Amino acid sequence: MPQLRLALAQVNATVGDLAGNADLVVEHCKDAAARGVHLVVFPEMMLTGYPIEDLAMRASLIKASRATAESLATRLQDEGCGDVVAVVGFLDHAEDSSQGFGIPKNAPLNSVAVMHGGRIVARQAKHHLWNYGVGDEIRNFVPGHEINILQIGGIDVALAICEDLWRDGPSAAAKAAEAALLVVPNGSPYEADKDDVRLELCSRRAREGECVLAYVNLVGGQDELVFDGDSLVVDQDGSVLGRSGQFDPELLVVDLDLPAATPAMPDAEERFGGLAIRRTIISSEPFAAYEPLPVTQAERMPRHQEIWTALVTGLRDYVHKNGFSSVLFGMSGGIDSTLVAAIAVDALGADKVFGVSNPSAWSTEHSRSDAAEQARRTGLTLQTVPIAPIFDAYQEALHLDGLAEENLQARIRAVIWMGLSNQHGHLVLACGNKSELATGYSTIYGDAVGGYAPIKDVPKTLVWELARWRNAYAVERGETPPIPEGTISKPPSAELRPGQLDSDSLPPYDQLDAVLDAYVERDLGSADVIAEGFDPALVERVIGLVDRAEYKRRQYPPGPKVSRRNFGRDRRVPITHRWREKL
Amino acid sequence: MPQLRLALAQVNATVGDLAGNADLVVEHCKDAAARGVHLVVFPEMMLTGYPIEDLAMRASLIKASRATAESLATRLQDEGCGDVVAVVGFLDHAEDSSQGFGIPKNAPLNSVAVMHGGRIVARQAKHHLWNYGVGDEIRNFVPGHEINILQIGGIDVALAICEDLWRDGPSAAAKAAEAALLVVPNGSPYEADKDDVRLELCSRRAREGECVLAYVNLVGGQDELVFDGDSLVVDQDGSVLGRSGQFDPELLVVDLDLPAATPAMPDAEERFGGLAIRRTIISSEPFAAYEPLPVTQAERMPRHQEIWTALVTGLRDYVHKNGFSSVLFGMSGGIDSTLVAAIAVDALGADKVFGVSNPSAWSTEHSRSDAAEQARRTGLTLQTVPIAPIFDAYQEALHLDGLAEENLQARIRAVIWMGLSNQHGHLVLACGNKSELATGYSTIYGDAVGGYAPIKDVPKTLVWELARWRNAYAVERGETPPIPEGTISKPPSAELRPGQLDSDSLPPYDQLDAVLDAYVERDLGSADVIAEGFDPALVERVIGLVDRAEYKRRQYPPGPKVSRRNFGRDRRVPITHRWREKL
Repeated sequence: MPQLRLALAQVNATVGDLAGNADLVVEHCKDAAARGVHLVVFPEMMLTGYPIEDLAMRASLIKASRATAESLATRLQDEGCGDVVAVVGFLDHAEDSSQGFGIPKNAPLNSVAVMHGGRIVARQAKHHLWNYGVGDEIRNFVPGHEINILQIGGIDVALAICEDLWRDGPSAAAKAAEAALLVVPNGSPYEADKDDVRLELCSRRAREGECVLAYVNLVGGQDELVFDGDSLVVDQDGSVLGRSGQFDPELLVVDLDLPAATPAMPDAEERFGGLAIRRTIISSEPFAAYEPLPVTQAERMPRHQEIWTALVTGLRDYVHKNGFSSVLFGMSGGIDSTLVAAIAVDALGADKVFGVSNPSAWSTEHSRSDAAEQARRTGLTLQTVPIAPIFDAYQEALHLDGLAEENLQARIRAVIWMGLSNQHGHLVLACGNKSELATGYSTIYGDAVGGYAPIKDVPKTLVWELARWRNAYAVERGETPPIPEGTISKPPSAELRPGQLDSDSLPPYDQLDAVLDAYVERDLGSADVIAEGFDPALVERVIGLVDRAEYKRRQYPPGPKVSRRNFGRDRRVPITHRWREKL
Repeated sequence: MPQLRLALAQVNATVGDLAGNADLVVEHCKDAAARGVHLVVFPEMMLTGYPIEDLAMRASLIKASRATAESLATRLQDEGCGDVVAVVGFLDHAEDSSQGFGIPKNAPLNSVAVMHGGRIVARQAKHHLWNYGVGDEIRNFVPGHEINILQIGGIDVALAICEDLWRDGPSAAAKAAEAALLVVPNGSPYEADKDDVRLELCSRRAREGECVLAYVNLVGGQDELVFDGDSLVVDQDGSVLGRSGQFDPELLVVDLDLPAATPAMPDAEERFGGLAIRRTIISSEPFAAYEPLPVTQAERMPRHQEIWTALVTGLRDYVHKNGFSSVLFGMSGGIDSTLVAAIAVDALGADKVFGVSNPSAWSTEHSRSDAAEQARRTGLTLQTVPIAPIFDAYQEALHLDGLAEENLQARIRAVIWMGLSNQHGHLVLACGNKSELATGYSTIYGDAVGGYAPIKDVPKTLVWELARWRNAYAVERGETPPIPEGTISKPPSAELRPGQLDSDSLPPYDQLDAVLDAYVERDLGSADVIAEGFDPALVERVIGLVDRAEYKRRQYPPGPKVSRRNFGRDRRVPITHRWREKL
């Protein structure tokens, strides 16, 4: 059977950076050429980054993206890798689409260009547009109606883009067209516990299509999304032939033995379902026989390490892609800021991490000492600014009490962090967790300030799990556990009044998180939550808190999505509404 | 010709308040019955309010909405108005739609129920879903595929829902089915200068359909949207037969003489385009002849009054629908906070409006006196809290300078407002204008704090125009102009350092707003903006400011959309991006 050396370019594109992303393509194509690769596949929307949201409809970006794709094809040839077939995602527009109601302005296409020999030899636009959760593609793109069959080294290769794979169609079309390989560029964000679904889908589609399937995904952070890579190749039985690691860029090279193409000629009328089949013969002779490379198959990360790495990746890229290099945040000695500190040190290095301790009259001694202990363990810089004199100056004028007085302390701290941020150029991090966001247990313009919120999608019970995991991981590797044990074991408190505990205001976190998992993550109605055995009073209390906290969540900084449904673009509800679940 | 007394119920629904919205329907149907009305039409999604965003996909809300519609039909009969045909928007779901990829969960429908004689006699779902600007209906609904022809008093009446009217189809279907009247429930948000487009469209569709057309719209504020009503009826020549006022609830009654229905019988096979035509005979005999009422045709508001009323309505409903009754904000004596004060007094009454003056060392004497003068003129409550002692307490610890020191002052003020808000229950207003939001000329967590931002969609040049208009309007009516003249005429300054002027940091506002109008409002690329004759250096400067201020805009409170493209759901771009328009 003919051989094909395939490369999956799992890269970290930056939204809007056409030149930088094109450089990444060139770099990887040169690497691929040097390694004898015949076909290299880049992720969805490689040249523009993903997702570009309403930027897709800007005529100037469409024009620039198309021009970048054209010049990139030439440049690949000029730089000596024009013989490699490169599949490169980019923003295109439909030539034949009329403008008008219901058609996104400028008819943008989520496309791939197939580059070879200095030119674009084929184009294909995504058929099925992602329209749920964080995806808004029907708003921003028009669908394509063609599927390409590329003959490379005498092997027929079919193309599909991301969401297309989740629908029936491409694999059946690949089968109908007798393609031996289906390649699928993706922009598929990380979600905890999603991995097996992805492999299972690829295996199923490979079996359906009776073809090898190559799935190529982005890595890196983009606003609230983190892309985890996990690029893979499965054979026609659904068995894994190669798999990339997660979260890091990688050029995975996989050698394939594939059935030779049947001698079908281009036929303008060939169709499958609603799709026109376009055949392009790039090279019909099999490549000279060669010795296959050994199979590379990365180990999957264990669950906690995977989530941890998503959080680290999200933070690192948000900081760097927004032009910062260092971060600053309040270190109360509580578990949340302690976990954020450990993530930040892993993401940026201790010399880029600045903690601020702002003790008040109600801060306990162990909180101060826990913060100092963590600074000692990790090497981050800890500064202490007591808030009492500032608090007194406000109270001289305002005489606040109760909740207003508690919030005042949180806001004084925030003003200090923002002042230090403005003075020294650090990005401020908000340290709230998902359980807090869900229930509104935070002070708006207080602990909720910041440019990025690394653990906003992590429920409190998972915060503790991750802290324990990170310490154990350090011990395994003979390193100092970054998180002081006392921080993990003490009962959580906002320390805004004497003896305050979270449990004064919230249900126990194990119960709270279980209800939130049902109501938010799994999107069940209250009746269904109760049917799972929860106390109706608990359910009513939690749902009431969630429904009333929408405004606070809107004001919260962005942070990495790791769950099925984050409190970002996954779940869009009006701020002003009076819908109450009946219990 | 048979007569029909038609009523257009232009009401202020509240999102999620099924019971309250059903009460509104009953109240208006009783009024309609008392006035001899045969057919009363309510706006789109009457029972749930509009837009409900992802709440549409909650099974519990769908179930409750359907149950409310069923029980409402019975209740209308029980309360003595079952003879009136009522067209009531509600959230339904498709019975026949399969679940799966690409189909919104639970297959929600944006529907209307036709109620008569104690039951729902017909249902129709929107065909064309709104999918641009602030509309996300393709995300949240599945489309309907039927059009109803209701025979009422021997007259054939066709139905279409909002966006359907903007596409070809309903009017042609109405014509094909020989309907004499096309009724269209809407949830159509206010936009300055949009009114004539709406009338023009209705007239065109009436002429196309050779029928009378009745357009019924919501009034009131919902998060960032303001609905302006402007319900109207046009005849088959496109001439206005009746028109409601703007922004206020109203039951507009219009008497029509319409051609009798041709004796078509229900025919399951009747279709037009992709739509199945469903005929329902409610009453085939003409109503007894009666004396028509005189025509009601409200005057359109002049442009500035219309925008002003939109701002007042948006603020009033946001405050009340979120359970507040009073507002508080910083009164610097500048034009922005002065305008907000005047809007708030018009919306809520002076006794619900609390201004806080926070003079610093750099506050000018005229700023303090202008704020006091406005308080005197309008009757709002003004409190003064100097910030110097608090500023000194911070600086004792932080020693900030430059921009960090300037921002510190703005943030100290914000903490004071939020403290007073928490203590006394006022909603804090942010006073920034659209030119500031566009360029990022504000202090995050400083002047940008608040629960609502009444003028965030008003460019600075329009801020001045509205101030002058409001004063002139007061003079016309023999009232005291609310805005001190000095506030309007002095050069704008943030007063965060000695002698500071906005013009130190920004282009002159007339130039800035003109470029923003081209780049943001009309969505032109930089080359097209320059082609309009603007200085390329100015364009580059302004676009650079706009592209870098996305994060600040995300953190800004919601406020009423009055322009074509606000900085809210109209224009969604990533925070993290490196796309720069080429000049």
